[in-house]
Amino acid sequence: MRVLVLGGDGFCGWPTALHLSARGAEVGIVDNLSRREIDNELGVQSLTPIAALDARLAAWAEISGRSVEHFPLTLGRDYDELVALLAAWQPDAIVHFAEQRAAPYSMKSSRNKRYTVANNVCATHDVLAAIVESGLDIHLAHLGTMGVYGYGAAAGAPLPEGYLTVRIETDDGWVEREILHPVAPGSIYHMTKTQDQLLFQFYAKNDALRITDLHQGVVWGCQTEETRVDPRLINRFDYDGDYGTVLNRFLIQAAVGHPLTVHGSGGQTRAFINIQDTVRCIALALAHPPARGDRVAIFNQMTECWRVRDLAGMVARLTGAPVEFLANPRNEAKENELSAKNDTLIKLGLEPITLEAGLMSEIVEIARAHASRVDLTKIPSASAWNAERAAALAADQDAQEQLRAAQ
Amino acid sequence: MRVLVLGGDGFCGWPTALHLSARGAEVGIVDNLSRREIDNELGVQSLTPIAALDARLAAWAEISGRSVEHFPLTLGRDYDELVALLAAWQPDAIVHFAEQRAAPYSMKSSRNKRYTVANNVCATHDVLAAIVESGLDIHLAHLGTMGVYGYGAAAGAPLPEGYLTVRIETDDGWVEREILHPVAPGSIYHMTKTQDQLLFQFYAKNDALRITDLHQGVVWGCQTEETRVDPRLINRFDYDGDYGTVLNRFLIQAAVGHPLTVHGSGGQTRAFINIQDTVRCIALALAHPPARGDRVAIFNQMTECWRVRDLAGMVARLTGAPVEFLANPRNEAKENELSAKNDTLIKLGLEPITLEAGLMSEIVEIARAHASRVDLTKIPSASAWNAERAAALAADQDAQEQLRAAQ
Repeated sequence: MRVLVLGGDGFCGWPTALHLSARGAEVGIVDNLSRREIDNELGVQSLTPIAALDARLAAWAEISGRSVEHFPLTLGRDYDELVALLAAWQPDAIVHFAEQRAAPYSMKSSRNKRYTVANNVCATHDVLAAIVESGLDIHLAHLGTMGVYGYGAAAGAPLPEGYLTVRIETDDGWVEREILHPVAPGSIYHMTKTQDQLLFQFYAKNDALRITDLHQGVVWGCQTEETRVDPRLINRFDYDGDYGTVLNRFLIQAAVGHPLTVHGSGGQTRAFINIQDTVRCIALALAHPPARGDRVAIFNQMTECWRVRDLAGMVARLTGAPVEFLANPRNEAKENELSAKNDTLIKLGLEPITLEAGLMSEIVEIARAHASRVDLTKIPSASAWNAERAAALAADQDAQEQLRAAQ
Repeated sequence: MRVLVLGGDGFCGWPTALHLSARGAEVGIVDNLSRREIDNELGVQSLTPIAALDARLAAWAEISGRSVEHFPLTLGRDYDELVALLAAWQPDAIVHFAEQRAAPYSMKSSRNKRYTVANNVCATHDVLAAIVESGLDIHLAHLGTMGVYGYGAAAGAPLPEGYLTVRIETDDGWVEREILHPVAPGSIYHMTKTQDQLLFQFYAKNDALRITDLHQGVVWGCQTEETRVDPRLINRFDYDGDYGTVLNRFLIQAAVGHPLTVHGSGGQTRAFINIQDTVRCIALALAHPPARGDRVAIFNQMTECWRVRDLAGMVARLTGAPVEFLANPRNEAKENELSAKNDTLIKLGLEPITLEAGLMSEIVEIARAHASRVDLTKIPSASAWNAERAAALAADQDAQEQLRAAQ
């Protein structure tokens, strides 16, 4: 199988490219290295000292004997080059990670909102238009997010996989219909993934494209079977207030002796998945594409649900770190219940890795090994969702400063 | 009231700007004249000889004594200028028509698809981000489309206004919820309006913006009370296969002695509204904004539903023109029923202008007066929705050529 991985230098994209390559796929990476540029812009870097992409690929060729080529296109801009690449490379499948994926980053400023919308929507649309123009029967697997559902629409029932059966009143009484699950995105980033869904629905119907949309939970962990083999293959690990994901941030805070910072009440329940399962899920999705003319296949790519403050408590027990509650920069419900179905991937063979001390310890060890690379000032989440949240953050900061002055 | 009309040089935008100005609003027009550029690109022009925008505005000042200023910004690009304009101009309301609005144009090629997506989504998002950044309490009224609903989701019941009551199964049995009506857009253009809806939902919730989305039917007619007053104020009238709307195209065909061309079976039912009612609806929407913190107000801006072949029959009876059935370039259902609610605008005072011979005759007269400007080769709809439809169009053309050769 020939697979192009868009965004193949990123946190999920890189281990996916190696996982597929290790299992015999011919892999190409399309990446403009924008994620590394954003690190520079934010003045942060991956906790793990990731190698340059060329060095990563050279190491992989040396270790595995398999070559992976890099195509440095910018999706949403270099459209003609993308069409030419599809024609020359003739992929069977495309895995699409090439979107700006941090909710806090997407809410930082008008510039960030505008970048996230233009980048994500135009990248996804370019891929779809290019597949149609190529005339090739390419299966597109896209990384969506559990955040498209919001947490309200079907409250009181496990989130289904993409589609929801509803009853609608007609002139003949109430009839059942299956609709795309209503959306309630919590950030501009999540909103772009709900816009992506509309693109997929349209192209699946109008051009019979084969599309799988994987609604992923919050990813935790760092290494996979392949990235562990050699330091030059090590995966990215983000701990900063914009790109760090919640459990990974707690683990790094514990490793460097920082209190575990819970923003808000910590009453939000979220869906989680380990990075090793992410790459397995994508391989499963590629092995089971929908048929031409089928509707968009939507899988929930998550393995368990946790309340944020319970996660903090678990890491606190594991490591002895204290828990600190700060103002919440996000505009979100204080508490929510959540459960979700993931039947499809389980049926296809996924055996979930669940949260347990062993795997968490691995991350704490990685964090300790690279502790000198941590910039503590980059840990707080400082990106406010709106004017009211910005005021709450500022008041919180004032109170902390007064507390420090009084001590 | 101070109102900025985005896209105020267009078919709906221009009469709206005059209608509001005539009723005492302070009006500014934001327009980059892209619609005129697309005419040049397609090698067509408005049937009516529209004046340059500067000349239009000078004539309006001379006739009405009211000045309307033009700001030549490109939305989605000139963001800083837009923010500065809001700060300097302090509008109470913004009417947003500034999107590429032809379904056939949006389907012509990858370039057209990409332009429509980037232009429409980024324009709408820029307006929302700029309103937030301005800190002003500006009411945004946006021109949506009845095409967001598709014609299937709630078949068997009149289309509600934006939101749909459904029953959802929870652990406590079936409960009622009101959701944004499921979407089923029929073209890339319509798809961008479904993406706009997601932007509106997000900004209404996250930043308490006041937003009204007007889901408009197919507009027919040409002149309004204000544009009729002087030839320099005449409104645009499109008859070409990309921008001409169905009833207006039949009327022009009849006026120039061309058969009325029905693409496909003509069994599709669509919602319609006269251009004079369009401008009245917008004034009504501006006079009744939602409160801060309210959900997006969605009105159906249409007054009656007609089946396409019945419209052709009516124009044929009125004018004696023959009806011709051609291959359908669109990927759409052969037949559909449609009825829709428009209770909100009726309750606010709209007295609908319905299809009748008198008004249609006015258009036939306009068409006859400018018949020398018609390019018959631009009348057919030649933009195919997908590969299968392109093949059908080509076969149809071959058959016609053989028929002509045999005659």
